[in-house]
Amino acid sequence: MRATVMFGAGDVRIETLPDARTIEPTDAVVVVSRACICGSDLWPYKTMEHSETGRRMGHEAIGVVESVGAAVRSVKVDDLVVMPFAYSDGTCTFCRAGLQTSCIHGGFFGVVGMEGAQAEAVRVPQADGTLFVLPVGKDHALMPSLLTLSDVMGTGHHAAVAAKVAPGKKVAVIGDGAVGLCGVIAARRLGAEQIIILGRHADRIALAREFGATDVVSERGDEAIERVRELTGGFGVHSVLECVGLEQSMLTAISIARPGGAVGRVGVPQGETMPASLPAFYGNITVSGGPAPVRAYIEELLPDVLEGRIEPGRVFDRVISLDEVPDGYRAMNERESIKVMVEP
Amino acid sequence: MRATVMFGAGDVRIETLPDARTIEPTDAVVVVSRACICGSDLWPYKTMEHSETGRRMGHEAIGVVESVGAAVRSVKVDDLVVMPFAYSDGTCTFCRAGLQTSCIHGGFFGVVGMEGAQAEAVRVPQADGTLFVLPVGKDHALMPSLLTLSDVMGTGHHAAVAAKVAPGKKVAVIGDGAVGLCGVIAARRLGAEQIIILGRHADRIALAREFGATDVVSERGDEAIERVRELTGGFGVHSVLECVGLEQSMLTAISIARPGGAVGRVGVPQGETMPASLPAFYGNITVSGGPAPVRAYIEELLPDVLEGRIEPGRVFDRVISLDEVPDGYRAMNERESIKVMVEP
Repeated sequence: MRATVMFGAGDVRIETLPDARTIEPTDAVVVVSRACICGSDLWPYKTMEHSETGRRMGHEAIGVVESVGAAVRSVKVDDLVVMPFAYSDGTCTFCRAGLQTSCIHGGFFGVVGMEGAQAEAVRVPQADGTLFVLPVGKDHALMPSLLTLSDVMGTGHHAAVAAKVAPGKKVAVIGDGAVGLCGVIAARRLGAEQIIILGRHADRIALAREFGATDVVSERGDEAIERVRELTGGFGVHSVLECVGLEQSMLTAISIARPGGAVGRVGVPQGETMPASLPAFYGNITVSGGPAPVRAYIEELLPDVLEGRIEPGRVFDRVISLDEVPDGYRAMNERESIKVMVEP
Repeated sequence: MRATVMFGAGDVRIETLPDARTIEPTDAVVVVSRACICGSDLWPYKTMEHSETGRRMGHEAIGVVESVGAAVRSVKVDDLVVMPFAYSDGTCTFCRAGLQTSCIHGGFFGVVGMEGAQAEAVRVPQADGTLFVLPVGKDHALMPSLLTLSDVMGTGHHAAVAAKVAPGKKVAVIGDGAVGLCGVIAARRLGAEQIIILGRHADRIALAREFGATDVVSERGDEAIERVRELTGGFGVHSVLECVGLEQSMLTAISIARPGGAVGRVGVPQGETMPASLPAFYGNITVSGGPAPVRAYIEELLPDVLEGRIEPGRVFDRVISLDEVPDGYRAMNERESIKVMVEP
């Protein structure tokens, strides 16, 4: 089968590899109907050192179950399924608490040693706990929005939950990538009164406004902080969705949270320490978040997708074939595209 | 009147100063019945640069109202009151949200430019919002426990609330000072199933056990982390009360929290950045806390004090006069005393 392999920064290739097959009795093999390229794939695309063996890429997919191991019970051949970016057994103490990204027997797709979803097919460990069977056919018009339940919509929702978004709250979203845009959707869905998007790409900002952003702050650093304060009666926002992960964005996040406010961070931190610990302390600001347990959120978000109340699939502005994946990375890296969907 | 002034590290003196008097119409003057020395007073005691004018000390008191300004309504002369370590108007958006330590018109006692409570009397700004009238006489047997409502008991409770302590949870308390000990009381009061105290002073540990600690970890660093994991089935605790504020203690706090757990920090951070940001992220660990809005907690905690269900006053192991305050600092700094009560 063909699959995407990254061999180093800027070096993404489509390789012919052995077909995906079940190894453990709890595995399933999923033939990928739709996959996509994630903003987090751009970190290795910018920085990965050359590797002879490479790293298989992709952690978001919808597909059709082709085969299942002997122990798989809740998923069967021909089911259309969402594959969240983390696999999980669904039964451990953390899965039962709704934190599948910390599953004792879990892990992540598209990391070294694991298969990836930017491929014709993918082996899915812990199929019963991981896969979510969709109640629609594989050519459903809402496929792009359903695909976002594998990562970006669930991640934006997680940021909003961690940031304690609730009816009437003032919210800021840092980052206008696909996750930030889904964060706007999530904040509106949870009843935010004011949603300030911090970003500077015209196309993304326009989409953020359609998703429910009420204000735009295109400044950066101290100017951005000043502007958010102006927009919020001088106090800052109750909830900040930090969807970038840089030290500067985290510093901004804490600086624009009002006393007693919360920062929900889903941008993978690029630094070992967190800035502004002391201001966060004095303001009793809560910092929460991490890898989103998107598997836990599918049931809650799915009805809103199927009934058209939210349209996260609009973050996809380009559809490509598997052969075009290397150019898809280039396009996202050059901010030519918000998010690229792959139809293998 | 006589009052405590710190002129530099190790240099605490009892000075004769002009009598406390109301300045603003919202002020009250409180004659101090009981005050105390706080663990946080030891930071300047260790590090303060010499100052000609000095800094007036003390932020915890119970006393009798001697006079009130023209605008004061809810407090009257001769009332016995608790003075929380922060003053607050009780009416601003943050006070109404229960975060009096971020009051728009508030501030802290015993900081540069403010009066302190280790004195015969103290001027209290925003008297209506700040002072809590006690329903007992000033020689009540429970005075030591009531005095802890001005800071350490409310602060330990805040750590527990920020760390999301709830019935059945496994909890760790880092620090065996008065706040950590009150954190043990708070964790037990909120229904924790297991309470692990991290500390190494025999007298304090003994008290922690009487307050409800179920396990003691006297190791430090990696050994302490390993030991807590052993005590919690390998996963760590749901809730960590960080009652120290050093980088090492914060690192330990994050390292012993289980995935999805929470750290409630009330030890004033001694560093600008927070360590272990990345592990906290991957574990979806919430970091919360800050200066405790003890004013908000008095109503909740008072019945348990008056009815003897909690005895936080037991953290006081020495009672001194105002003249002995310099020696009280020495005794606390040398760990000869857990917490010193002052009867001016």
